[in-house]
Parts: sequence; structure tokens; C-alpha cells
Amino acid sequence: MKRAAPMDVLLAGNLGTDERAAWSAALSAALPEARWWWDDAPFPAAMIEAAVVANPAPGRLQGLPRLRLIQSLWAGVDRLLGDPTLPEDVPVARMVDPAMNEAMAETALWATLSLHRGFFAYARQQAGGLWQQHPQRRADEVRATVLGTGQMGQATLRRLQQQGYRAAGWRRADGPQALAPLLARSDVVINLLPLTPQTAGMLGAPLFAALPRGAGIVNLARGGHLVEADLLAALDSGHIGHAVLDVFAAEPLPPVHPFWSHPRITVLPHVAAQTDPRSAARVAAANLRALRDGLPLQHLVDRTRGY
Amino acid sequence: MKRAAPMDVLLAGNLGTDERAAWSAALSAALPEARWWWDDAPFPAAMIEAAVVANPAPGRLQGLPRLRLIQSLWAGVDRLLGDPTLPEDVPVARMVDPAMNEAMAETALWATLSLHRGFFAYARQQAGGLWQQHPQRRADEVRATVLGTGQMGQATLRRLQQQGYRAAGWRRADGPQALAPLLARSDVVINLLPLTPQTAGMLGAPLFAALPRGAGIVNLARGGHLVEADLLAALDSGHIGHAVLDVFAAEPLPPVHPFWSHPRITVLPHVAAQTDPRSAARVAAANLRALRDGLPLQHLVDRTRGY
Repeated sequence: MKRAAPMDVLLAGNLGTDERAAWSAALSAALPEARWWWDDAPFPAAMIEAAVVANPAPGRLQGLPRLRLIQSLWAGVDRLLGDPTLPEDVPVARMVDPAMNEAMAETALWATLSLHRGFFAYARQQAGGLWQQHPQRRADEVRATVLGTGQMGQATLRRLQQQGYRAAGWRRADGPQALAPLLARSDVVINLLPLTPQTAGMLGAPLFAALPRGAGIVNLARGGHLVEADLLAALDSGHIGHAVLDVFAAEPLPPVHPFWSHPRITVLPHVAAQTDPRSAARVAAANLRALRDGLPLQHLVDRTRGY
Repeated sequence: MKRAAPMDVLLAGNLGTDERAAWSAALSAALPEARWWWDDAPFPAAMIEAAVVANPAPGRLQGLPRLRLIQSLWAGVDRLLGDPTLPEDVPVARMVDPAMNEAMAETALWATLSLHRGFFAYARQQAGGLWQQHPQRRADEVRATVLGTGQMGQATLRRLQQQGYRAAGWRRADGPQALAPLLARSDVVINLLPLTPQTAGMLGAPLFAALPRGAGIVNLARGGHLVEADLLAALDSGHIGHAVLDVFAAEPLPPVHPFWSHPRITVLPHVAAQTDPRSAARVAAANLRALRDGLPLQHLVDRTRGY
């Protein structure tokens, strides 16, 4: 099925110089037979068959008559799909990078260990010069609910269970009636849902109220899942014990935002799971080869579902 | 082999009221046929056959003519053995509590994840309101050396390897020539050695110098392992990137100590692994039953070796 002419691929995205260099090297190595074009220099729009994208500028993917695949380098495609100029009839593929799934599971495990063993509380004590021990629970006395059972949710569930936690997954198809009893006994809730109109604002007052007092919230998905004012109220009342937030409605988190200095909020700068160019480039290349060879494409997004 | 008379057991230690209550309940439940006496009230010294101890006052175990076993509730016995009045001919047993081994492995894993994924650095950034991402490494790119290969060291090695880290153990019998090449490529060093004259001060300038720049130090064993001034110098030069310290030469850590406010030191108030009365009481009770029934005692300390 091989063709004589190489495939022209557009790289489009909002990336720093070092990141561009890393992606260029990894993608060229993974698919040396393609011609790679960056969108910050002239490229042959009429020839482009595939676009590999990382938060491309709105409108960037218009005017590409031969475009047959939009391959995201990020796992989350809510911003990409939010661009009303995105060509309607071109398939969009999410990045499903095994290294990224494991990085996400590591962050979820770290947050769970920190909440379970009181390490955030001990950090607050250190800041105040306070030496005080708290009772220690075994992992099998700690229950975690993982919202989202995609590849990242599954990797997270595996790690937590491997460490002895009582971890259960929930997905939207399970319905709210399945969620309430899980929440009622959860010490930790870890959000890994895709951001869609149905999941936006899900981490809000009703969900917090369904948790036992002192539970921890870990949002590793999207800022749009969290109702910020509800979290602040639940933390200040003591109903929620601590929150670990990697994602925010506005990123970077604005300098004057109250999350920065809240003693019961851990702010991470969207680093829970970075895409690893070394493995992700191979995943993207496999899809581009499939496109070239007329084979089925992987990890396609259902635009009506939003992920 | 059962006897008609119940065994009289002395509980001796520096414990708070809640701890005393928890241990009394757990020990009585684990060995209801014994008579349990606390050392803060009158007890029949001539009848005591075994002492279950948690940092007993020096001299407390003198004048017990029938004493045949000193069972520690703590894993570390350096302080107990340091009491020159400790009866010489009475066997001493350490606590080897499976729940405590797992708690220690959890803390070691949490510290390793925190160092590997930059979570201490992100906490410093949060304090300064700084949004900045750092490159992400895979777990298999991170090497950890665990000093001490007893039950806690082995539990820690298992957890780290299970999470994909390249973790290797070292024990004193391996000799310094085996340690140097491990240190030369270690990103993290976790100390779980017993404190003996041979291991005191081991976390000092020579060991730090053998590590690559930026390595992390995790001391979960005893404060006497660490040369505090050497650590401060290595942190301030940037050679050591961060230290997680659970144990200190003086505990509680004195209020004016420079560790409290050092941005690259995480201070924990000796909570890496607390003995869990629920499981440890069963371990102590099994040894007391063995004593009563003339069976071999477990976890006996070699006093010449010091652990």
C-alpha cells in the first residue's frame, strides 16, 4: 500500500522553543518518511494531509483541502473541539500515551499517599514550627473514588489498589445513583473525567456535601470541572480537608488568585502528566502510518460525546 | 506445656494517656490470659516475667528477679540498649510489625515520588506564587538506593520496584566498596539502617559527595545517622537538592532549629512508621506465649551488633 510521495504533516501549536525541538526530533525519528512543517513558517497548505496539534491557534486548521486527520498531542481535546472553525468532516484523534497514563497514576498515588498519611498537614505544621503526631491509618482503611475510567482512570485504579487502598472507579454511564454511595464513604476523590458540558462544574457543592467530613479532593482533569467558590467554602467550613489542584479555569493561575496562599490547597502548574515526546511521537506516528496505509485510525474522538 | 498461674507482664514506657489506653486494649485482647501491669502504678516486681517496653525510664527494668524477656514495642532499640542498667542476661526482642513495615515503605515511596516528580519544588513555587513547569522523567529513569535491607528495607525496595523505580538495597555487610558505585548514580538515598556505632554519622559529607548533584536524602531511621552541619552545607551548595527528615538528634526538633525553616528540608515529626497497636500487640503476644511455652523467641536483638 506504500505510495511514492511522502506525506506532508503540519505541526501546529503553542509550544516553547525547547518543546518544539523535542517534538521535532521525536516525530522525525518516529516517522522519518514524512515531511514535517511547523505552522510558524511557510508551509504548503494544499499538500497537508495530517495535522499534529498542541493547542493550535483558532482557525489554524482551516484552508487545508487535503487534511484527513487531526492528531492531538494532548489527551484532553476540549479546547481543540471548542474551536468553531475546526473542519467538521476531518477525524480528530486524542493522544493516548502509555507514559502519560503512568505519570497521571503516579501523581494520583502521590496525592492519595499525601492525604492518607497527613503529609500536607505535616507541611503546614512545619511552616508553623509545630511538632505533633497524628494517628496513622492503614491503606486498607482509606477509600478512594476515581471519577473517569478511561486509560488514565484505569492506570490510577491499578496503582491505588496495588498499594492496598480501597479504590473504586465511576464513569458517567454508571449514573448519579451509583456515585452517591461511593462518595458517602470516600476519603479521597480523584477527578480524571473528560471536560464536557455534562461534566463541567461536577466538583461543586452537591458533590462535596455527599462526602464525609475531612475528605480530600484531587482535580487532575480540567479547571472547568471545579466550582472554585464552592471549594473555598467547603475548605473554610472544614468539610473538605485538603485539595490538590493541577488544572484551573485560567492557566497560568492568576497571581492574585486565592488558591495560591490557601493553606489547604496544593497548587500544581498543570504537571500531573505531561505528554512525553519519546513515547507520544510513536503513538502519533502509528496513526499517521495507518492514515497513509488506509488502516483504521486509533483513539478517535466522538465529537458529539466530546472525548 | 500450659501453666496454672497467669504470666505477670510489666508495661513500661513513656506514652501518653491515649496511647496507654490503645496499647492496654490491644495487648489484653491479644493475650487475655496474662496479668498486665503499668509501671506508673504499684506492680509485683518479684512476679514480673516479661516487660513490654516503649522507651522505658532508665533503670526501670532493674530489680525484676524473674524477668526473662524484654519485648520492645518499637522497631529501633538503640535507646533501650543505651541504658547501662539494662539487665545483661535477659533477651531483648525488637518489634517487627508487618503494618509498620508497610507504613515505612509508604513514607519512602511518598518521598521518592515527591522528589522524582518535583512536588517539593512545586510547593516552594506555590509559596512564591510561581507557575513554572519542569521536565518530567519516567520512574525507570530514577535510581534509588535503600540503606538497610531488613524487613523495612525489603518492604521499601518492593514498593519502589513495583512502581518502576530502579531501586537497589545496601547493607553494611556489603562493604563500602559496594556502596560507592550505587551512590554515584543515585537520585535518591533512603536510610533505614539501625543506629549502631558503625552507622552513626553515615549521612555526612563523604556520602553526600559520592552522590550526583541534586540528589535527595530521605532519613527515616535515626537522627544519629545524620551529620546536620554537613547536610546544611550540601543543601546550601546545591549538591543535595532536598532532604526529607523524620528523625532528629533531639526530638521534638527544638523550636529554634534551622531545619524548620529551610526551604529544601521537609521535617516530619517522627511519623514515618508508627507502631500499630492492633498488629504489634499480636506480635508481642506471640513472643510472650512462646516464652510461657518454652518455644523459641522471635526477633531477638544481638546486643554486640546493636540490632
